[in-house]
Amino acid sequence: MGLDTDYKKIPKMLLHKEYPVFEFNKHMIDATHEYAIAYKPNLAFYEMLGAAGHMSLEMTVSYIRDNYPDVFIIADAKRGDIGDTSHMYAHAFFKTLDFDAITLSPYMGYDSISPFLEVDGKWAILLALTSNDGSKDFQQLQLEGGKKLFEEVITTSSEWGSVNNIMYVVGATKAEALSRIRQLIPEHFLLVPGIGSQGGSLQEVAEHGMNDRCGLLVNASRSIIYADITNKFEDAARHEASILQSQMEKILLERELI
Amino acid sequence: MGLDTDYKKIPKMLLHKEYPVFEFNKHMIDATHEYAIAYKPNLAFYEMLGAAGHMSLEMTVSYIRDNYPDVFIIADAKRGDIGDTSHMYAHAFFKTLDFDAITLSPYMGYDSISPFLEVDGKWAILLALTSNDGSKDFQQLQLEGGKKLFEEVITTSSEWGSVNNIMYVVGATKAEALSRIRQLIPEHFLLVPGIGSQGGSLQEVAEHGMNDRCGLLVNASRSIIYADITNKFEDAARHEASILQSQMEKILLERELI
Repeated sequence: MGLDTDYKKIPKMLLHKEYPVFEFNKHMIDATHEYAIAYKPNLAFYEMLGAAGHMSLEMTVSYIRDNYPDVFIIADAKRGDIGDTSHMYAHAFFKTLDFDAITLSPYMGYDSISPFLEVDGKWAILLALTSNDGSKDFQQLQLEGGKKLFEEVITTSSEWGSVNNIMYVVGATKAEALSRIRQLIPEHFLLVPGIGSQGGSLQEVAEHGMNDRCGLLVNASRSIIYADITNKFEDAARHEASILQSQMEKILLERELI
Repeated sequence: MGLDTDYKKIPKMLLHKEYPVFEFNKHMIDATHEYAIAYKPNLAFYEMLGAAGHMSLEMTVSYIRDNYPDVFIIADAKRGDIGDTSHMYAHAFFKTLDFDAITLSPYMGYDSISPFLEVDGKWAILLALTSNDGSKDFQQLQLEGGKKLFEEVITTSSEWGSVNNIMYVVGATKAEALSRIRQLIPEHFLLVPGIGSQGGSLQEVAEHGMNDRCGLLVNASRSIIYADITNKFEDAARHEASILQSQMEKILLERELI
């Protein structure tokens, strides 16, 4: 579940709190933890609030860690820089903040990713084929030799680590491409945003992208966290999360994965 | 001048201050402002310090703005996300923090960059060909039709804005590629890191990359800010900055640009 928490969209009754964004997240996490296996704060929403945003992020990560220790926490940060700097980012997200995983942009290549792979038990989640229109501009370009850029990104980078420390971002709006990606990397986990508000279908994503240990982390954000902005916001979010969870459960049962 | 301020490397005498990284930056800025036309904090170095890092960054930007209002301030942040999120990042760096420019990764395409181009008087600096080894992995791949990926990134993205709101990052270690890039975009400014510690030569960069209004923002960081870590650190930094500035001045005089 994405915590793309926009302070302009949260219920007014929380705005008098010192850290309204954290308060909102806390309510959302309590309401949905039975149905969510991972939370994914989107860093931009915290950075735009300056120091208060940083505090809200830090408190959110600690709150999840302290109360729901089995839940996976992903920094949706899309970082990527030369080696020395990437070491600093790895420290920022895996040590200073206790995230389990971070999304990364592959454009700068091996040494921009490897520092994240050196931290035991942590994950790098590389952008492969994203859900936005702009994915056409470069990700889908045809390379000499026949592959598309996102395919080359996947094949090359999958050699840098293992199925136990690399995942890939593949947008749910690109369900047809999931089959192709599964040929390239049958075993890796895929983080699939774009279910819900962005129009991706869970059924299609499962059909094209699921492997024999599921292999999918499907993300919904706005369709859950802004399901209602009255004082019933928690019930509405719980309800939306439960719908998605039961759809997923049904698929997993049909495939005898649970 | 890059403010890649690593708190482990700053003079011990500053460590008792509440915000040692800011104190160091303040000294560095005062020591070098006669020679530097831009400062470029590298976000990773601040993010790894959590809330204190955020405060140091905020104070650094304000300090430059208040004391040296003509100096250009670049967030070396390498962001890039889908449109909604990029709007938030643009807000974070251009409104919450008063940066003039931000470095961006182009991998996600048009809608990940355009929100930064919509803010008057601010600049997007796109990664094109970086100075690290990993630039071989994807940036230099050959596309169908003959162009390399970084060339396609430059040609396509230069249509998204103008020479007045887009620049490109080209590493100084890639001087020979600068000539090719100048054929593609004769007028755009290039941000060229990698002079000094990373081994790039100013003379070569100027030869291949300078245009008739200079067109280069040449960055040095570690070679200046860590020139000395005793109590003479300010003098040493001033000296290193002045050397680079006079090398640049000489080149600009030779070409009758000043």
